[in-house]
Amino acid sequence: MEKEEKLMYKVLKQEGRAKRARMETVHGTIETPVFMNVGTAAAIKGAVSTMDLQEIKTQVELSNTYHLHVRPGDKVVKQLGGLHKFMNWDKPILTDSGGFQVFSLSKLRKIKEEGVYFNSHVDGRKIFMGPEESMQIQSNLGSTIAMAFDECPSSVASREYVQASVDRTTRWLQRCKDEMARLNSLEDTVNPHQLLFGINQGAIYDDIRIAHAETISKMDLDGYAVGGLAVGETHEEMYRILDSVVPHLPVDKPTYLMGVGTPANILEAVSRGVDFFDCVYPSRNGRHGHVYTNFGKINLFNAKYELDSRPIEEGCQCPACRHYSRAYIRHLLKAKEMLGMRLCVLHNLYFYNTMMEEIRNALDEGCYEEYKQKKLESMAAGPKD
Amino acid sequence: MEKEEKLMYKVLKQEGRAKRARMETVHGTIETPVFMNVGTAAAIKGAVSTMDLQEIKTQVELSNTYHLHVRPGDKVVKQLGGLHKFMNWDKPILTDSGGFQVFSLSKLRKIKEEGVYFNSHVDGRKIFMGPEESMQIQSNLGSTIAMAFDECPSSVASREYVQASVDRTTRWLQRCKDEMARLNSLEDTVNPHQLLFGINQGAIYDDIRIAHAETISKMDLDGYAVGGLAVGETHEEMYRILDSVVPHLPVDKPTYLMGVGTPANILEAVSRGVDFFDCVYPSRNGRHGHVYTNFGKINLFNAKYELDSRPIEEGCQCPACRHYSRAYIRHLLKAKEMLGMRLCVLHNLYFYNTMMEEIRNALDEGCYEEYKQKKLESMAAGPKD
Ligand SMILES: [Zn+2]
Ligand SMILES: [Zn+2]
Repeated sequence: MEKEEKLMYKVLKQEGRAKRARMETVHGTIETPVFMNVGTAAAIKGAVSTMDLQEIKTQVELSNTYHLHVRPGDKVVKQLGGLHKFMNWDKPILTDSGGFQVFSLSKLRKIKEEGVYFNSHVDGRKIFMGPEESMQIQSNLGSTIAMAFDECPSSVASREYVQASVDRTTRWLQRCKDEMARLNSLEDTVNPHQLLFGINQGAIYDDIRIAHAETISKMDLDGYAVGGLAVGETHEEMYRILDSVVPHLPVDKPTYLMGVGTPANILEAVSRGVDFFDCVYPSRNGRHGHVYTNFGKINLFNAKYELDSRPIEEGCQCPACRHYSRAYIRHLLKAKEMLGMRLCVLHNLYFYNTMMEEIRNALDEGCYEEYKQKKLESMAAGPKD
Repeated sequence: MEKEEKLMYKVLKQEGRAKRARMETVHGTIETPVFMNVGTAAAIKGAVSTMDLQEIKTQVELSNTYHLHVRPGDKVVKQLGGLHKFMNWDKPILTDSGGFQVFSLSKLRKIKEEGVYFNSHVDGRKIFMGPEESMQIQSNLGSTIAMAFDECPSSVASREYVQASVDRTTRWLQRCKDEMARLNSLEDTVNPHQLLFGINQGAIYDDIRIAHAETISKMDLDGYAVGGLAVGETHEEMYRILDSVVPHLPVDKPTYLMGVGTPANILEAVSRGVDFFDCVYPSRNGRHGHVYTNFGKINLFNAKYELDSRPIEEGCQCPACRHYSRAYIRHLLKAKEMLGMRLCVLHNLYFYNTMMEEIRNALDEGCYEEYKQKKLESMAAGPKD
């Protein structure tokens, strides 16, 4: 079967529940655990281009379906040859389903069995999006991995609401799978090998999440995500849910924790069997001059960096640290020069991508727990001066 | 004399009044005619770094003394080893005198024989700047070339005002020269080989400008600028003044037309003997999506580029054109992604720097006038589609 030929996901090594895997896609290999770099509107915020991504160890770029549907329009992207050609990026791309944005950006929305009716946050025009529409848009974008269209219920939703929502998300998932199969078989499809990941939901109800995980695991999707976390619950609740749910997802498929998180969150989630991550923190923090180091996060606006001729982090091989000092970057940020944001975002993404490389190396060497403890302690300790 | 060893400016070729020269500085060679790339606050606006400048044929970076004096402070820059080290740029840097900003940014100012009293445009605090202060600040910055402190009288100022102003500028120039000699001889000077360019003024009064040019030419400075142009007068007035004044400046010294201008302005000024230029147009226009091509300037916000998969200019080897399409850059601009501005600024600076290269090649081959006519006609013709 063609499907099995193209999805080659192999777990290379395990340590406890943590897994080190390799995934072959039509756009190249993904070594996991991996942190996907978020480029919402087909660009990483902070003036970072796909050429830059080649220099900071980015393996997978993540773009947002809803944003691209609204502007420039997925049909425009398709006419231009798909997202890979549009952005000039030949490595894997994951697109989200658009569901999260529909639910979080639109004030006026109505959820029905067929999908969601809502108003565009840009111009207010009425849009309908259901499982088929989400798949069609993602097919037009031609990403490597498409995400299923789901509802992400609020972490404070009632048990009754969450159960009904999850049941509908399961029905939507089957529709996504059917529509994706149809789209991938069409002649003019941008990427006929597009993969589909399903999404586990259930808010903070462990039993609903477990039952849902078991149901979708039987649907033989290309990967499985845990959604609806990092939306307000505590870190401890998140770890508890991962402890409950991940064992009920197939170990021989990618395990993706959506929208997470801090370096510590990632280290803990890897221990719990997750190997795909994405988060806006490194780029968002970078734009505000908050940069990650192995001794914790520092705020470059702080006056103590005015005469600091050291790089953000000694030894860091990112484009910012190889060439510029904290003092210079601080000056750029204070002077509101865009270059300051760009350099901080480049460093932060490099920091995350490098941490993932360290995680993979530690797993390869069978010393992940030891590595994790040292990394967590060092980051919690704060800068030495 | 040490001075003559370090300033090695040689006219290699002349065609009419146009000159092709080479200047050796402690920070390397400048091939002229040259367009200096403006990095106001020690950074090119549009998230462009000195690493980028290495890739777009930049020979000289220009920073603004007034801005750096206000933030981060020239003493901070000196403590960090000077502007070259601060920005990580090892090629020539020219700093302006700060005078132009003092006169244009400050509403409250008082000009006296000793210098100018004014209020900072950032925090309103009182600042005094005279020839000595300007030289001290530029010495702290350690630029390759410092500009003399002058007054740039308005193009609508009366003849009486302009004459008095120019006379004072001449007295200030001698004070600049004396102070620079003193600073260059100090032990802890960042760049003891700092060069000084004088500035010709006189608004639109040809005779005042000519007399001033003759006076300052006798002062044996390292180079001569024509200031106070491109501030509201017509292009024809500017060309007429260049026709009048440049023959009264030494041909065996650099001839710098400050703040100019459009590609056509530069082509015309080269014919009139100018070989140093600077202007904010390419970066400012780039930030607004206005990009230069050999067939005129185009506005990437225009709807007709929505599906245009061609680069900004076919064959352009800039980082934007080598990798991205008009459609993609247009999308970035519309989505307010900083990357859109960055790519346009990179293209525009590359366009200017490449035009200067073409100008030098045409002069080397003795066909400058022919080249100029073809270039002007092509740019005036507009895009072919
Ligand atoms: Zn770094
Ligand atoms: Zn270009």
